[in-house]
Amino acid sequence: MTDYLTYCDLARIADRIECLATMTEPERPYSRLVFSPEFDTARAWLEQQFLAAGLVCHIDDGGNLVGVRRGKASDKKVIIGSHIDTVPAGGRFDGIAGIVAALEVVHHLNDAKIDLPFDLEIVDYLGEELNVWGTSCLGSRHMAGLVTAEILDRVDAAGRRLGDEIARLGGSGRPPGDRRADADTIIACLELHIEQATSLEFRGCDIGVVTGIPGIYRYAIDVTGQAGHSGTTQMAGRRDALVAAADIIAATSALATAIASDDNQHFVATIGKIDVFPNGAAIVPGAAQMTLDLRAASEQGRLRFLDQFETHLASVRATRHCAIEVRPLAAAPPAPMDPGLQQLLAERATALGLKSMPISSGAGHDTAHLSRIAPAAMIFIPCRDGLSHCPEEFATTDAIAKGAAVLALAVLELAVD
Amino acid sequence: MTDYLTYCDLARIADRIECLATMTEPERPYSRLVFSPEFDTARAWLEQQFLAAGLVCHIDDGGNLVGVRRGKASDKKVIIGSHIDTVPAGGRFDGIAGIVAALEVVHHLNDAKIDLPFDLEIVDYLGEELNVWGTSCLGSRHMAGLVTAEILDRVDAAGRRLGDEIARLGGSGRPPGDRRADADTIIACLELHIEQATSLEFRGCDIGVVTGIPGIYRYAIDVTGQAGHSGTTQMAGRRDALVAAADIIAATSALATAIASDDNQHFVATIGKIDVFPNGAAIVPGAAQMTLDLRAASEQGRLRFLDQFETHLASVRATRHCAIEVRPLAAAPPAPMDPGLQQLLAERATALGLKSMPISSGAGHDTAHLSRIAPAAMIFIPCRDGLSHCPEEFATTDAIAKGAAVLALAVLELAVD
Repeated sequence: MTDYLTYCDLARIADRIECLATMTEPERPYSRLVFSPEFDTARAWLEQQFLAAGLVCHIDDGGNLVGVRRGKASDKKVIIGSHIDTVPAGGRFDGIAGIVAALEVVHHLNDAKIDLPFDLEIVDYLGEELNVWGTSCLGSRHMAGLVTAEILDRVDAAGRRLGDEIARLGGSGRPPGDRRADADTIIACLELHIEQATSLEFRGCDIGVVTGIPGIYRYAIDVTGQAGHSGTTQMAGRRDALVAAADIIAATSALATAIASDDNQHFVATIGKIDVFPNGAAIVPGAAQMTLDLRAASEQGRLRFLDQFETHLASVRATRHCAIEVRPLAAAPPAPMDPGLQQLLAERATALGLKSMPISSGAGHDTAHLSRIAPAAMIFIPCRDGLSHCPEEFATTDAIAKGAAVLALAVLELAVD
Repeated sequence: MTDYLTYCDLARIADRIECLATMTEPERPYSRLVFSPEFDTARAWLEQQFLAAGLVCHIDDGGNLVGVRRGKASDKKVIIGSHIDTVPAGGRFDGIAGIVAALEVVHHLNDAKIDLPFDLEIVDYLGEELNVWGTSCLGSRHMAGLVTAEILDRVDAAGRRLGDEIARLGGSGRPPGDRRADADTIIACLELHIEQATSLEFRGCDIGVVTGIPGIYRYAIDVTGQAGHSGTTQMAGRRDALVAAADIIAATSALATAIASDDNQHFVATIGKIDVFPNGAAIVPGAAQMTLDLRAASEQGRLRFLDQFETHLASVRATRHCAIEVRPLAAAPPAPMDPGLQQLLAERATALGLKSMPISSGAGHDTAHLSRIAPAAMIFIPCRDGLSHCPEEFATTDAIAKGAAVLALAVLELAVD
């Protein structure tokens, strides 16, 4: 049994996590939104880290930062990737831990002077987190050929067209047309990520070997009523868009709670974002725009929710005299992980003396999209109290190191096959 | 019977309304928020209009723009005022019609070379609309001695201290201590305003003689839950601040509708503003801040609402596992209008051949605060479909002219007394 510390450097891991944490909106830690100035700074810093580790860097058509470590003459490839963008007021580890761990694998191979029989690509996938254009996993979707012209044409409130933003970073800004041309040469896509829940912590496991990633669906909900003076618009005649929105928010929570409890499968539904117009204290709200985020391990759960939700919307329209429109923003079907790679990762954890368990992902990940074009798998590491997408998010350097060692051993094992 | 057109100039009224409408945030008509660049522009323009009408101008300690037309040696005063600030995405007539009408009175007195036995003050009251500091009627409250150091010390999200903003416009920026020193010399405070409801339009009346202004109370409601990842935070364990807020919004609407229907008195309650944190589509909301706006013709209605509301909040705290805090932001008791002035205004309308009716105000007005230090009264003019605080707000030039004529005749009558 080898020690996981053979495969990585704790101080280097901690330094990089700390360094990226400084690249945040100062007033709202930790916020490094894709295409923000903070993101640009972090990308430039990361490219320097890639170069210093001997990787040959380029930005691909999807805007991903790709660092290649050439192997012995071969057209095979292994990808290890994650992301460095964050949600607003998010954490220091979601995505970041995976990038830092991937770099540890490169350092180990360099230090051990190992010449792999395949190219190793370290990828910072562009814009994994949900953004104001309503689509997450921009870079991995592009690799899988799933970014459409419609998505790229979306314009945010500040007038920024998504395709133009991607082009500004060095991507093509155009739809990929198809999955990446060399997809058949990819023998494995790997990713390390924090669990963002409490199963590993609760069971004292070091490594979760992910069995699958749930389907993720997002919908825009637009509620239109009639703005009016809060003092003179009588209660009886109101068409208050926020009151209608409140009904929808409460129904979303109630329906999702019932389905999650009945099905005993992963099912969550969230309205996390609401914008009210004109949002003045003395004005009856005239409109509300919300985003519904739905995650279901089974298609059956999603359809059951949508069916009951539609019935409820009809009742809200009638009682609140508001128009309600629901538009799909993004859809990603459930993504099972490659069984062979799952087994490989579990065995490598055991070889390091680490305790692992199979685990179902609650969150979406870039690897879900990669799994549609190549064998793909993920490992989770524990994070404190399961907190994520908030500043309290925390994973120990040791937990990241253990995961990095599993990735390194897995890459070495793939080289043997 | 004299013609109301004797007392004003339709083209001048229309020009001034149109001119002020151009002074708006270009992307969000009609927005002229107090202390905004648009407001500064409008204030400068209005001072020029005052000066051109022969008024002697100054900014008083409360930041009000005061134009004085000196009368025959006397220490008596009549005030006609309203305001030129707007709510976000508000209208072109709320407040503005009153200022434009007041100027018509001055023009008539000038044209007819009438020397009044009292000073006539035309006042643009500062910041009548509710602002980001949570207090409306800044200027009229100051005149009435009701602005406190606590209010002036409030700082907005951009770091602007309210007292400093008032000082920047030429006010003292300090609490008044007491009502204005010459309050006892004021024999009448008058204001013309659009109705902001449909009673006048519905009954075909030209003039509403306001009987009273309801009590207006505002509360900040802070909901604190726990932010988390929308994919990994199970439904059962959530402390979703937006779901708790939705319960509060729905309860506010239901309680207010019941009270308004039972009491058959003016009662409205509105949550018009909500800010959710972090407001990301893939994040369970961790906090929500709302403003509750409550308007009640009777204190009994308000107390009944608050009692039931508190019971409901206790239930939301328990079921949603969120902390909920309610803080009073502003309070203004109901303000009855002066009976003598009401009679005077009704008679002057009749003298002009106009149809008038007594009417209860739904909205708050600067005149509510003036009524606490001097005899005060208001007239309402019809506005289309009762719409107000929205861009569709509309009153005809003719309706403004009729109101201006009533004000002119009332001033002349006060001169006779």
